[in-house]
Parts: sequence; C-alpha cells; structure tokens
Amino acid sequence: MSDDEPLRGLFIAFEGGEGAGKSTQVRRLQEWLTAEGRPALATFEPGGTPAGAAIRAIVLDRAHTGLSPRAEALLYAADRAQHAHAVLRPALAAGEVVITDRFVDSSLAYQGAGRTLSLEEVRTLSRWATEGLRPDLTVLLDLPPEVGLARARGRAAADRLESESLDFHQRVRTTFRALAAAEPGRYLVLDATRPADELAADVRARVGALLGVPA
Amino acid sequence: MSDDEPLRGLFIAFEGGEGAGKSTQVRRLQEWLTAEGRPALATFEPGGTPAGAAIRAIVLDRAHTGLSPRAEALLYAADRAQHAHAVLRPALAAGEVVITDRFVDSSLAYQGAGRTLSLEEVRTLSRWATEGLRPDLTVLLDLPPEVGLARARGRAAADRLESESLDFHQRVRTTFRALAAAEPGRYLVLDATRPADELAADVRARVGALLGVPA
Repeated sequence: MSDDEPLRGLFIAFEGGEGAGKSTQVRRLQEWLTAEGRPALATFEPGGTPAGAAIRAIVLDRAHTGLSPRAEALLYAADRAQHAHAVLRPALAAGEVVITDRFVDSSLAYQGAGRTLSLEEVRTLSRWATEGLRPDLTVLLDLPPEVGLARARGRAAADRLESESLDFHQRVRTTFRALAAAEPGRYLVLDATRPADELAADVRARVGALLGVPA
Repeated sequence: MSDDEPLRGLFIAFEGGEGAGKSTQVRRLQEWLTAEGRPALATFEPGGTPAGAAIRAIVLDRAHTGLSPRAEALLYAADRAQHAHAVLRPALAAGEVVITDRFVDSSLAYQGAGRTLSLEEVRTLSRWATEGLRPDLTVLLDLPPEVGLARARGRAAADRLESESLDFHQRVRTTFRALAAAEPGRYLVLDATRPADELAADVRARVGALLGVPA
C-alpha cells in the first residue's frame, strides 16, 4: 500500500512501561466502541502478525540475551513493518478504528533511550519500516517503573526486558514523557496509578471527541 | 565492538545466485587454508548465529510468503547485525581469516534489485546493521540463473526464494555483476559453469596472494 492511499480510519496507540495497564485499557476502549456501534480492531506489537509472533519469540527469549542492540532494533522494525503492511494500513484504509498496544514510541523508549543507539537512528528505522505511518492519538499510561514492575512481576516470570535494571526503566519512562511533551496535541498522558475505571473514562472522552461519539 | 577497533584478520565473502557452488568453494578454501596452517572460520548468512537461524526460518518459510518487502529486508539486516556482532567482528579482531557464504551483496541483489526497494535504502540498512563492515575480497560465482536453478532444484525442494520467477533471478545476477564491476579491485568474478577444481584453484591464487601464502 502506498503512502498516497488515504487512510480513512482512526489510529490509536497505547504506550507505557511494564505493568502500566495498556492491555486492560485497549480492551476497555474496544468494548466501549463496539457497544457504540463502532467496532474497532485491537492489535499489538511485537507479535501482531504470524511472522511477528516468530520475531517476538526471538526478541523476548532469554536464551538470546546476546542479541546486539542493532539486531534487536532491526527485529522490532521488521515486526512493525509487517504489522503496518498486513494489519494496520489495510484496516485504516477500510475506515476502521485501529487500537494498537505499543507502536513506534516503544522502540524509541526501549531501544533508543534504554540502549546505546541514537533516538534518531531508531526513529529513522521505524519511519522506513512503516512508510511514515503515525497514530492520530497516542495514549501514554505513565507510571513510576517501580510500581509497574511490581505489578508485572506479580503476573508472570520476568521476561528479558522486565529483568533489566530499574535505572533502564527510568530512562524508558523519561523518554516516553519527552515524546509526549514534544507533541502535546497528539498525546493523552494519563497517571496510570489511578483506578482503571477512571482511566478508561478519560480515554473514552478523548476518543469520543475525535469520532464525534459522546463518551 | 566499535568501528575503531582494528580488524586484523582477512574477511572474504562468497556471493552468487542459487546453485552457483558457493558452499563447495567456501569449504574448499577453508580446507586449503587449514592445510597451509592458516585455520579459517567458515560461516554463512542468513542463519550464522542462533538468533539468525530463527530469523532465517521466518524468511524462508513458505507459509510467510505474505512478508512485506520492508519486513523481509529488515529481517535480513537483523540477521546480518547479529552475525557481524557475534561472529565476524570478534574473529577478525582476533586476526582470523573469515569466509562467509553470502553477505551484503546478497541483500542488495535479492531485496534491492529483485524487489521494489531502492538499492540505496537496502545498502544503508546493511551498513547500519554491520557498522560499516566490508569484505577485503568478494568472490562472485557468476552463473546464468537457468543453470543455477536447475542445479539447486536437483538438490532439494524449492524454498521461497528459489520459487521466484526466472526474470527475478536474472535481475539478481545483473545486480551482482554490477556491484563487482563498480569495485573491480575488491572482487574476483568467476564463471561458475567451470569445473569446481578450476574455480578452487583461482580462489586459492587470489587469497594466497592476499595472505602471502603460495597457492
């Protein structure tokens, strides 16, 4: 699909650290939109396509901890390229509301700020991978990493990213917030220590305004 | 490993289409160097590392034929990044002779010329992936695609790349030859329809000259 093809749908990304409640909020928003007669596609990265699931397995597997920062960034970009090509662009071109759990900002935060790569290089990779696809709205669920990691650890064994140092996760949070601060009109930043019901209501209000649907 | 670290070894790449005899010539060269007291590391792309083997499986799997050209190019770049990081650079820094079956030129020929991506974009990806690593010598085993494909088909079921059209493979060959013509001093172009013994002797003569070992 070329860049020239108009994307008539609405593209919403949820971003944030581990345990911020992204998957809960994606599901709550999808349920509300469906009830309002606007069925929405909920998807995620990495792993939102069959090839992406195989890529995700490589990146998250603890046996591959020796993955170089560039190899890791390229794998995330490959996952995103396939996701944009096979899922996001076709749905947006068909006029659907598309909600993704993680998108470009996660690569910037985790691979760029967290590792040794420049933010600009990782941004260029993602831009090339997606042919410049950008969310209409990005919801950042912002949370101190010690809170999010405690939640995530209560849920399952730590995967490779979660087992990074607290300092790493603090750099990730700082990057997410800086990205939002640079484009305030395209972001909704929420304090994710608040109750899930309140967060869902704030998301509905913003998305409802974009769609002309009363929240 | 930084770009600044001197790479004291000798880096040799073999390139060419399907059925050109690359793996035979890699093995013959490695055997000769070993007999001459210069043990050499023989490796390959894609799949020369554990993570790379998993990446290779994604790219070559016929079930993933829907892989977008950008996703495919990024997967090959990820494989190469890990190969350069974990295999090529450490061996070269240790002064070894390293022989790889396929390197950057294969991506340029298959993803760049063969598909819809620009050669310059694919070259930029590979350069970023490898931090600018270049072979000291590239041996191009040049062969009309109809000859190579007939050889390869006699060997095993066609994988995804081999099942592309003959026209695709002709564009691949043209690109390999153009890359060699642009840097004649760094390439050895051999007519791969000749007997394997003769080809091996020509390779030994060129590599022997580079190493100061009489072929």
